[in-house]
Amino acid sequence: MAVVPILSDGEAGAQALAVFDDIRETRGTDYVNNFWRALAADPALLRATWERLGAVMGPGALDPLVKEMVYIAVSVTNGCSYCIHSHTAAAKAKGMTAAQHGELLAVIAMAAQTNALATALQVPVDARFLAEEGTG
Amino acid sequence: MAVVPILSDGEAGAQALAVFDDIRETRGTDYVNNFWRALAADPALLRATWERLGAVMGPGALDPLVKEMVYIAVSVTNGCSYCIHSHTAAAKAKGMTAAQHGELLAVIAMAAQTNALATALQVPVDARFLAEEGTG
Amino acid sequence: MAVVPILSDGEAGAQALAVFDDIRETRGTDYVNNFWRALAADPALLRATWERLGAVMGPGALDPLVKEMVYIAVSVTNGCSYCIHSHTAAAKAKGMTAAQHGELLAVIAMAAQTNALATALQVPVDARFLAEEGTG
Amino acid sequence: MAVVPILSDGEAGAQALAVFDDIRETRGTDYVNNFWRALAADPALLRATWERLGAVMGPGALDPLVKEMVYIAVSVTNGCSYCIHSHTAAAKAKGMTAAQHGELLAVIAMAAQTNALATALQVPVDARFLAEEGTG
Amino acid sequence: MAVVPILSDGEAGAQALAVFDDIRETRGTDYVNNFWRALAADPALLRATWERLGAVMGPGALDPLVKEMVYIAVSVTNGCSYCIHSHTAAAKAKGMTAAQHGELLAVIAMAAQTNALATALQVPVDARFLAEEGTG
Amino acid sequence: MAVVPILSDGEAGAQALAVFDDIRETRGTDYVNNFWRALAADPALLRATWERLGAVMGPGALDPLVKEMVYIAVSVTNGCSYCIHSHTAAAKAKGMTAAQHGELLAVIAMAAQTNALATALQVPVDARFLAEEGTG
Repeated sequence: MAVVPILSDGEAGAQALAVFDDIRETRGTDYVNNFWRALAADPALLRATWERLGAVMGPGALDPLVKEMVYIAVSVTNGCSYCIHSHTAAAKAKGMTAAQHGELLAVIAMAAQTNALATALQVPVDARFLAEEGTG
Repeated sequence: MAVVPILSDGEAGAQALAVFDDIRETRGTDYVNNFWRALAADPALLRATWERLGAVMGPGALDPLVKEMVYIAVSVTNGCSYCIHSHTAAAKAKGMTAAQHGELLAVIAMAAQTNALATALQVPVDARFLAEEGTG
Repeated sequence: MAVVPILSDGEAGAQALAVFDDIRETRGTDYVNNFWRALAADPALLRATWERLGAVMGPGALDPLVKEMVYIAVSVTNGCSYCIHSHTAAAKAKGMTAAQHGELLAVIAMAAQTNALATALQVPVDARFLAEEGTG
Repeated sequence: MAVVPILSDGEAGAQALAVFDDIRETRGTDYVNNFWRALAADPALLRATWERLGAVMGPGALDPLVKEMVYIAVSVTNGCSYCIHSHTAAAKAKGMTAAQHGELLAVIAMAAQTNALATALQVPVDARFLAEEGTG
Repeated sequence: MAVVPILSDGEAGAQALAVFDDIRETRGTDYVNNFWRALAADPALLRATWERLGAVMGPGALDPLVKEMVYIAVSVTNGCSYCIHSHTAAAKAKGMTAAQHGELLAVIAMAAQTNALATALQVPVDARFLAEEGTG
Repeated sequence: MAVVPILSDGEAGAQALAVFDDIRETRGTDYVNNFWRALAADPALLRATWERLGAVMGPGALDPLVKEMVYIAVSVTNGCSYCIHSHTAAAKAKGMTAAQHGELLAVIAMAAQTNALATALQVPVDARFLAEEGTG
């Protein structure tokens, strides 16, 4: 159903294959999912996306599972079917339980609802929610 | 700037005031923010929204701060200005550090980027990301 | 294609089954559609969603068919495929004619177009469109 | 705050002025709101938008007030501030009561919530919701 | 999967057929794609959409291929699967190379990312980016 | 109105200042716009965003002005006010005429309209619009 071919290893060029190899080694699996194979026709975009993803989703101030749940929330709100599937799978692989999944969905749905109300009413932002301005 | 008046305590009806009181007691503050005051013209909608919010955002399988960060992610993706301001303030009140805020934004921005790519390419979902179907 | 299993009656737990029964009785049909079966893994979320839906879509100041058309408009704008299918079916069941459907689509398309123009130009809101502010 | 100037009658060209006159005559008011004044720099786009709007929002199979409420629903979901303000004002001018407004918001919020759930779960469309296909 | 039947020439009415003929003649092909066949049940909407499309996408101040790429950008951001497929095909037919496609995707993805950041931070617009206001 | 302070040069740290200097040198202006000053609290995110922006928007297979117009299209569809203002200003600085701006808006509005129709009808993608699949 894709707009571009999903390249196999045999069809991908040398630069794309190098990224595929990095994906395999980083994840400890032989499987390279369709997203990366669809990007393989543009090796520069493929590499930039993969490298930035690693920098953002790797260890830091937030728990990796929390990051996956935030990723799901964005993907649901954007209606990105592929992203919902792949990051729900990733979150489960990182330990998301059924109870946590259900609660995540409830929060996303609640936020969608109150977002609609706040937008429909064009509620003015309370002064106390604004940042103190810099002096610049 | 609102579409409806932001009702003061004196302007709100008895049913709305009862919800305001519940908000004050639950949060341990005299301040009732504009979102609730904008909803006060429709007390049934006000109460239903407040009660459901409490049920969803209260203690459960996910950490309350994680829930606020998911809320921010949905609000950013929907472009709801009020919601971004109010839930960023709530997340800070629940302990979100500047480093966590920065990392949250990086994840949201990363998800926005890969969502756009996956959507633009209409990448087909990998079979392994699909749920095993029930037998029904 | 779902992210979670679509539970049959045999797979659903007792709490979910009770909601299924309520859906059947309320609608006067044996059929429980996939949305509810997908929510069944989280009975609390299933029940809260079903009960709130009944309160919102039931008799009130707006005609039930008008409510379904508003539902379709939101679903189209969100790009929610399932929601468009199920609420277009519901609107037809409540009497939406082909002429009304065509006119609904024309309004939705017109709104999408002028929304894009108003947003692209960042048109300032006319003073006369703002609510008179409360004194609070 | 606009991206383009909001043209006064004196600043608008002859073609734009002719559309302004048509707006005044059709609406029975001297007031031409900012949306049209922002479009006035491109008279062809101004005219095409105004004429199509008249064709779509005029008398037909749906009640004019229902059309305005559908317009609000699209505008809320798109987060178009100008559109929400102008069409809420228009709906009030066509008789929308506070109770109807509250109920409209409740439907929009409910739809936002279930849209998020259906999308998050990627619920497959029930066969009975699909159109019978044409034979072509 | 459609919500309405995709009408064949035999199923379409005389007014719709006249638009189909215009599409065939304008494009120099016998093929009429599904979008128009889905609209055929409402001939007035079909004709208005087709005529406006021709006026907008025809020769003008912008290159036709540039217009198709802008169309793709909107469609990706809206998550409209059909639109992404049909306008990517149209852009290729008008000469979009693989390198241009890759670069287009990179721009769309970059914009999605910085949009999320600007929205999340609610950055105030710099005075120099605002239009000089008209005197009206 | 921001969620974070807009840091002046005096408030920004050394790492952020280095990026500010790079922005000034690259653009040949002393002015650093608010977007970068809002990101300055997180120097790593600031640098990654600035560097990636340069790589994507620089010389390539597409004309820089075309890229700005695509950026505007995404920003309009996302409803990102800051982004619309800053990239419309950038497009004008790169030579976008009023006629091109008007035509760009017409294309964006047309796409928004047909996107809504295609989504509302859930039109199935024509086989000829699909990519030939790779053999993998």
